[in-house]
Amino acid sequence: MIKVNLAEKFALFSECWSPRIVGELNGQQVKIVKLKGEFVWHHHDDEDELFLVVKGRLLMRLRGEDVVLEEGEFFIVPRGVEHMPVADEEVYALLFEPASTLNTGNVRNERTVDNLKRV
Amino acid sequence: MIKVNLAEKFALFSECWSPRIVGELNGQQVKIVKLKGEFVWHHHDDEDELFLVVKGRLLMRLRGEDVVLEEGEFFIVPRGVEHMPVADEEVYALLFEPASTLNTGNVRNERTVDNLKRV
Repeated sequence: MIKVNLAEKFALFSECWSPRIVGELNGQQVKIVKLKGEFVWHHHDDEDELFLVVKGRLLMRLRGEDVVLEEGEFFIVPRGVEHMPVADEEVYALLFEPASTLNTGNVRNERTVDNLKRV
Repeated sequence: MIKVNLAEKFALFSECWSPRIVGELNGQQVKIVKLKGEFVWHHHDDEDELFLVVKGRLLMRLRGEDVVLEEGEFFIVPRGVEHMPVADEEVYALLFEPASTLNTGNVRNERTVDNLKRV
């Protein structure tokens, strides 16, 4: 039972698109991730995914209307919904999703991270 | 699919100790709550509970060592662990927990809120 300071955790890594696990509860994980540039279009068959912006501005591209998230704003991408995060400048985000969630969802490519690190 | 701005949601109510639901995913809920004063000692038999401080300083009293949470810090209270949040000054916090979680856990008193409002 140790508290987590988000700023301290973000300071421990610089790699983008590689979520780190910072907490676990009720079969869900709390992750933090740094984003810059375009990710890949993907969806999660069985998992809803929450993005909370801690720093910066995140564009969540959807196949319909896109969503722009500023600091202190979150968005839940429902399961099955295709999405692609885009960050013109570096974004820090907190994710809340089931422990089973793969970062690239239904897609497997060079950005897929199978074994997330804990920080 | 609508984004949530936490500051806007906190501005919609003033009542303390009465969590509001601001999101739902994977059987879990995202809630926001304003805290001031002492709550009640309680635990949750089956639910881990995450407190993320958005504004202020929260003292989480535990039966062992207490934890002080500043803005941008979170703490996960594991199921079964007795806790009592205390806020000398008003605190804004975000909670992640299963939809089934009762605010006062195993205790039922005047602070129990059975039907949480959504904002």
